[in-house]
Amino acid sequence: MERIGVGLIGTGFMGKCHAMAYGAVKAVFGDVPVIDRVALCDVDQGHTRKRAEEWGFARATTDWRDLLANSEIALVSITSPNGLHREMAVAALDAGKHVWCEKPMALTLADAEAMTQAAAKANGQATALGYGYLRNPALQYAKRLIEEGAIGEAFDFRGSVDEDYMADPDLAWSWRLKAREAGLGTLGDLTVHLISLAQELMGPIASLTAMVDVVHEERPVPGGHERAKVENDDIAHALLRFASGARGVMTSSRVAHGRKNGLKVEVHGSKGMLWLDNERMNELNLYLAEGPPERRGFRRILSAPHHADYGRLCPAPGHGLGFNELKVIELAELLYGVTGRPSASVTFAQGLEIEKVIHAFARSAAKGQWVRVG
Amino acid sequence: MERIGVGLIGTGFMGKCHAMAYGAVKAVFGDVPVIDRVALCDVDQGHTRKRAEEWGFARATTDWRDLLANSEIALVSITSPNGLHREMAVAALDAGKHVWCEKPMALTLADAEAMTQAAAKANGQATALGYGYLRNPALQYAKRLIEEGAIGEAFDFRGSVDEDYMADPDLAWSWRLKAREAGLGTLGDLTVHLISLAQELMGPIASLTAMVDVVHEERPVPGGHERAKVENDDIAHALLRFASGARGVMTSSRVAHGRKNGLKVEVHGSKGMLWLDNERMNELNLYLAEGPPERRGFRRILSAPHHADYGRLCPAPGHGLGFNELKVIELAELLYGVTGRPSASVTFAQGLEIEKVIHAFARSAAKGQWVRVG
Amino acid sequence: MERIGVGLIGTGFMGKCHAMAYGAVKAVFGDVPVIDRVALCDVDQGHTRKRAEEWGFARATTDWRDLLANSEIALVSITSPNGLHREMAVAALDAGKHVWCEKPMALTLADAEAMTQAAAKANGQATALGYGYLRNPALQYAKRLIEEGAIGEAFDFRGSVDEDYMADPDLAWSWRLKAREAGLGTLGDLTVHLISLAQELMGPIASLTAMVDVVHEERPVPGGHERAKVENDDIAHALLRFASGARGVMTSSRVAHGRKNGLKVEVHGSKGMLWLDNERMNELNLYLAEGPPERRGFRRILSAPHHADYGRLCPAPGHGLGFNELKVIELAELLYGVTGRPSASVTFAQGLEIEKVIHAFARSAAKGQWVRVG
Amino acid sequence: MERIGVGLIGTGFMGKCHAMAYGAVKAVFGDVPVIDRVALCDVDQGHTRKRAEEWGFARATTDWRDLLANSEIALVSITSPNGLHREMAVAALDAGKHVWCEKPMALTLADAEAMTQAAAKANGQATALGYGYLRNPALQYAKRLIEEGAIGEAFDFRGSVDEDYMADPDLAWSWRLKAREAGLGTLGDLTVHLISLAQELMGPIASLTAMVDVVHEERPVPGGHERAKVENDDIAHALLRFASGARGVMTSSRVAHGRKNGLKVEVHGSKGMLWLDNERMNELNLYLAEGPPERRGFRRILSAPHHADYGRLCPAPGHGLGFNELKVIELAELLYGVTGRPSASVTFAQGLEIEKVIHAFARSAAKGQWVRVG
Repeated sequence: MERIGVGLIGTGFMGKCHAMAYGAVKAVFGDVPVIDRVALCDVDQGHTRKRAEEWGFARATTDWRDLLANSEIALVSITSPNGLHREMAVAALDAGKHVWCEKPMALTLADAEAMTQAAAKANGQATALGYGYLRNPALQYAKRLIEEGAIGEAFDFRGSVDEDYMADPDLAWSWRLKAREAGLGTLGDLTVHLISLAQELMGPIASLTAMVDVVHEERPVPGGHERAKVENDDIAHALLRFASGARGVMTSSRVAHGRKNGLKVEVHGSKGMLWLDNERMNELNLYLAEGPPERRGFRRILSAPHHADYGRLCPAPGHGLGFNELKVIELAELLYGVTGRPSASVTFAQGLEIEKVIHAFARSAAKGQWVRVG
Repeated sequence: MERIGVGLIGTGFMGKCHAMAYGAVKAVFGDVPVIDRVALCDVDQGHTRKRAEEWGFARATTDWRDLLANSEIALVSITSPNGLHREMAVAALDAGKHVWCEKPMALTLADAEAMTQAAAKANGQATALGYGYLRNPALQYAKRLIEEGAIGEAFDFRGSVDEDYMADPDLAWSWRLKAREAGLGTLGDLTVHLISLAQELMGPIASLTAMVDVVHEERPVPGGHERAKVENDDIAHALLRFASGARGVMTSSRVAHGRKNGLKVEVHGSKGMLWLDNERMNELNLYLAEGPPERRGFRRILSAPHHADYGRLCPAPGHGLGFNELKVIELAELLYGVTGRPSASVTFAQGLEIEKVIHAFARSAAKGQWVRVG
Repeated sequence: MERIGVGLIGTGFMGKCHAMAYGAVKAVFGDVPVIDRVALCDVDQGHTRKRAEEWGFARATTDWRDLLANSEIALVSITSPNGLHREMAVAALDAGKHVWCEKPMALTLADAEAMTQAAAKANGQATALGYGYLRNPALQYAKRLIEEGAIGEAFDFRGSVDEDYMADPDLAWSWRLKAREAGLGTLGDLTVHLISLAQELMGPIASLTAMVDVVHEERPVPGGHERAKVENDDIAHALLRFASGARGVMTSSRVAHGRKNGLKVEVHGSKGMLWLDNERMNELNLYLAEGPPERRGFRRILSAPHHADYGRLCPAPGHGLGFNELKVIELAELLYGVTGRPSASVTFAQGLEIEKVIHAFARSAAKGQWVRVG
Repeated sequence: MERIGVGLIGTGFMGKCHAMAYGAVKAVFGDVPVIDRVALCDVDQGHTRKRAEEWGFARATTDWRDLLANSEIALVSITSPNGLHREMAVAALDAGKHVWCEKPMALTLADAEAMTQAAAKANGQATALGYGYLRNPALQYAKRLIEEGAIGEAFDFRGSVDEDYMADPDLAWSWRLKAREAGLGTLGDLTVHLISLAQELMGPIASLTAMVDVVHEERPVPGGHERAKVENDDIAHALLRFASGARGVMTSSRVAHGRKNGLKVEVHGSKGMLWLDNERMNELNLYLAEGPPERRGFRRILSAPHHADYGRLCPAPGHGLGFNELKVIELAELLYGVTGRPSASVTFAQGLEIEKVIHAFARSAAKGQWVRVG
């Protein structure tokens, strides 16, 4: 029985997601290696040891380089703050490890390029970025419908990604709002997901014109009476041209009251339309301009074993997958890559293309002009 | 009892809407004049006479100038093809008539300006353009919520207007696709409605950058094997800056399979969000960032007598108004204007501001740059 | 040009609905007689005269027998309190008038039977009861789908009708809660509508077992400190057997917070399912067990000119009809009956069948047993 | 660190669910014992060994009694066919094991009673039945709202549970349709879930009157031209009286085309209403009759860390849990019971109360009368 040792850096939201995925993937996908959870790493030793016990890791460490030095570990998960991704990922690749790194890839385009170069020079290791929404069976089925021509030529794209975690203007300032430490704001946190879906369904984005704004310009500094400046973007909107000739629009906001996981995509085709909304992630809405006109309407298709990997997780249609389960599928794809099989992972090279788009947003907004991506 | 004589030009979709509104308005709104339906005009005498009988008009004519010469007529409805609006409206104003003219206002900005000048020079007559969606009680309640500060500062706008009447690529070519005869395409048919709603909720649009495209570039000429070129726009998208400092996005399409009256607006505020969709025109969706966080969610508010003019038409909440009934409210507002009371009509002067925006779309798209409106 | 003179008794919610329908029907349906609004009747002379002027009636009266004596009037609308229906309807029929009477038909089954007998003895006059929801194009299209076999054999029915006009337990007591003056409660106000839809789609109800309850047993008497007993039903639920062999369930409530026009029907068939909700009356939801399984889902069909009489009111799909417009279609059907054409009116004889069902509810609930209808 | 050894009987849909839950529970809920997956049991040795490897069980066996004899195993999962539950559960309890048994509890009421007696005589072991939908944070939040009085007195309940796994009339006959081998049909498969939710929100059901029908009376026998009789129920509907004095209605069907996990509950209260639909299991719909009337509407509350155990699985609101994750929460509750803490498990004693209700359905339907439960 094939086995693989893994190490995980980070014990936050995404760290736990990775840990849960490691615990589940073999039971869900029988055709992947057995996972040996070798070591967990975070900055606080006591906390990390406790998590290691709960999450089934054999060892806890506060030095991430321990993981790279450990020959039992073949795959390293990086869920640390974004500013550390480059250093850790490059070092992990140099140490011969496969790398599963959360998004956004890095703070700067230069960092993302360095990571991609490290992956290119590596000795065949797999890389994967945390674009789990791509693995949603409803989204994959949408992709299949487009590829099969069900909606004809896809010529218009509408996408939005809205959440409200920064919507309260009185929410405290933090380092996450500082450009040098946190990089881009909404673009890095949210827009990257939207771009990943747009490119999955429509192909590469060729050019765009964007507006990138801070809405709530200052926020209160915790524990005092001062207010500090917000340095990264709350909102990012753009008009797009795809390489295919199609066009579209993207809107993004982290200050959108009421939206919790408001990632929506809509594709207009010459024979039909489809759309999805992550807040109802087990549904695909499809309109086909076929059959008797009086019977036409958007149909709400509930995810089911017919659709992509749904059946791996659940044999009962409409019973619903959760956010965490998309990470299990994401991991399975990485493990396919690790074991030399065809894989749908978003590699570093592919992730760099996403980074180029968000940086094109920033460039376009700064100039007030259309720009080419890349 | 106050009375007013009316004449109606046009017997198509909008002609019938005006006729139904004339037949209903006094019963619905007791505080307007009694309507005397004096004369109906269209090009075919037999057809027009038949419609006049059905619609309750005393006379039928094929010469629209008859209506202007008729001293019993104080108000003229213009529902003829857009290319005739300027000539008819200017002549009607010159003849001292009040004018109710369908949208879009005219084929060109110059024509719209001429109409506005004629209205400015007129002797106090009222003008109104057919922006009936503004009269939707759900939309008016949204406006009131914004004015009352319920959602705080409104800083982001998302709007779309999508229909599918031209979505079939094999639909026959017609004169409506010829720029000189029909003017703009989606911009004139659909985007003007979206602009009217956007400005109602957010105030004037100051600048924008747009893409305006023909998607289905040729269409079959009826009765032959040839294909003719489509000269006006299928799709129009834009990023916007409002005079208030707010921003937003608009998308429009007449080739959007599945959308029948897909006019949606969404306003993001610092304390909440609201949105509406004309396909469910009796609903307003509202999220307020107040009260216990665990109880927050978008609430679906069904239109009811609490909301604007709903109660004039129906005392029972949630029973629903229809598209035609918005035209009745639109007419009542015009009649308020005619009788010297405060009126919410979209006058020619206000309509010109909408025309300026669609022409700014066209200019921006041609240049590939941000442009100022006006 | 064919003409018909009409008289209207009542100036409340339904009176205004009838008045609006009289004002609209000829413009909407060209193939009906021209309506002459001869006289309006209600108890207060000044109020009635004012309404007559607004609603276009030539005369006002406070004596409903004036209408019966008036030879210009061929059709009488009865929208008075339910307790007066029998006397007025029988007298109108005896006077040779066609009768359009609001629902519920009467306070008691004996009254409804008397009305039906009067109609049977009449000289060919048409009768119609106010079951406007039957005329909803979405409902009629549902009926057509069932008749065409689109969903196979219809074997299970689920229906509910919920509103909240009495939901507040502190709402004041009124005569409408007194059995002798108002008759049944929810059964007469709401359940009759649900039964009309159930029978339209499924055929006659053969037997049922019901629970009929008062929930808020006492209510405050206005202007005092006392509380009076509520004598008629707040809630009525039943299991049903249809004559066809199908089965089903009905629930009704006038104390259902949040429901404004919550009339829903759902039909389960051997090849599909369909459902409608009056709060979104321009939508029909249809699931067909055909085509590729992975593409199946409930489709939301927006009412359009394809569907029944929608196109009479609006040529644009998805633009939406309102509650009042269903009454226009209802009136057109009556006028077809009046002029000897096939008519879909709910005649007194058909209305009696509905009354038998609500009285079967009451009998069953009193006995705690299954009962046969009729 | 506390540990517990587990054995699992069954490798089907539910077997895999239990396996996934065992693999996840410690990572999700830190405060439960570490799980040692000791042995897996099913009838085919090769298949069971393969699954054991994938699911992380140390051993595979084809004799379920091996698990009872194994002192390393303290907790046994029973996911075998329903007809085996009684024998296995009683033996497991007699062997001193904690028992997690899938629903429905048993084929007959006598079997369920025997299981309950075995649990009562046991030496303090915990029992739990597979009512995972009770653990849905949205449902638990609904319960909390009712307990807090948010919707006032809960007086009316509407519930339905519809799926379409037997909706195709040509689906092949199987032993599952034989009463002696499979017990009840829809009542055992689906209605039990609905009852569990109804009693969670409304308290015990006191009496009911039901209709229980086979719709598709014969089905084709695989591999031949014969048709065999369906012996258990396709459809089960009932009117209910709760011990609290509230009332309600339940509908159930396994032949409901289009429904995939159509488990819906709706509670009407004197101050508001709430409803949930398992096909959108991360949403609770709530109407409160408070605040300005014009702002009232059903609000769609997305599950979030505010709600019950959601935050254990995901710190991000609205990101959504899946069906499988409810089983993880279900297991955590059982482990609380195992370790002597307060537990929300549905014990055998509580499950018996659910069985009594479905058997009351059958009794009532057979008699055509109201019956008392129990």
